[in-house]
Amino acid sequence: MDDAADVLEELARRGGSLAVAESLTGGLVAARVTDVPGASRVFRGSVTAYATVLKRDVLGVDGDLLDARGAVDPEVALGMAGGVRRALGADWGIATTGVAGPAPQDGKPVGTVFVAVVGPGRGAGAVREFHLEGDRTAVRGAAVHAVLGLLRDELFANGGAAYGEHYGEI
Amino acid sequence: MDDAADVLEELARRGGSLAVAESLTGGLVAARVTDVPGASRVFRGSVTAYATVLKRDVLGVDGDLLDARGAVDPEVALGMAGGVRRALGADWGIATTGVAGPAPQDGKPVGTVFVAVVGPGRGAGAVREFHLEGDRTAVRGAAVHAVLGLLRDELFANGGAAYGEHYGEI
Repeated sequence: MDDAADVLEELARRGGSLAVAESLTGGLVAARVTDVPGASRVFRGSVTAYATVLKRDVLGVDGDLLDARGAVDPEVALGMAGGVRRALGADWGIATTGVAGPAPQDGKPVGTVFVAVVGPGRGAGAVREFHLEGDRTAVRGAAVHAVLGLLRDELFANGGAAYGEHYGEI
Repeated sequence: MDDAADVLEELARRGGSLAVAESLTGGLVAARVTDVPGASRVFRGSVTAYATVLKRDVLGVDGDLLDARGAVDPEVALGMAGGVRRALGADWGIATTGVAGPAPQDGKPVGTVFVAVVGPGRGAGAVREFHLEGDRTAVRGAAVHAVLGLLRDELFANGGAAYGEHYGEI
């Protein structure tokens, strides 16, 4: 649980707020964050866009991008993070998209996961790709850890590496 | 976990879809639902409106109601359930609002929880009030169980009791 408490403490210290967009994790990231007492100082809210069309209609992810690449894609992850940041009026947006299983999705195997962070700086975004092992529960749990780890790294890297620097980092 | 699997199976049988609005549970209801493999047949998505203003801006809950009563209120719970149903284009909307602790909120003691369901029938809504014991984790967990129990009861009561029939039932 420390990964959530760490990022909340750092965001509170800066006076920054957080919004979460989820797909395969389906509420687990928000649940982890709100498990920390006092989360409301920092956490504004979350959107779980489980149906692909909601990534477009609620989070504002580009519809042509979704049609061309499907929902399990690094640009979609960045679009979700930026979209939830705008929609919920937060300083930082984080997002997960991927294939929890049991079946592959959009031609991607189970365990393919993209996590993204978009912060307050101009062009400040980062995305990481993972190929996780294990069952549905293991993949979802590891994705929660992955997105909170990316946010922590971005915060402690002073919160604003350019997209290109991090793309495909893992 | 059976409460989530039961309602998903019944909704799938009917061809119905589900959206979730959360406050104190902060993602736990959506996480429980998406823990069930194949949840995407039924579950469209969720909104965690942790900041009170998002209950108005994202879910469409009446701002005057929120100003007058605060976020922990039966009408607010119904407004969240109806709002997320509309916003995410689902047949059924369910919602939680309450005080998880550690501190009271809007004059309500820790453990005060309202859960609501709004279904496809005209005027079809139900809300229940709880006064739960225990710490933050216990209150949040019991609230998840409470909202899924209300949805199950509404589905198996043929899904459409009038608001007045259920208001303050517990």
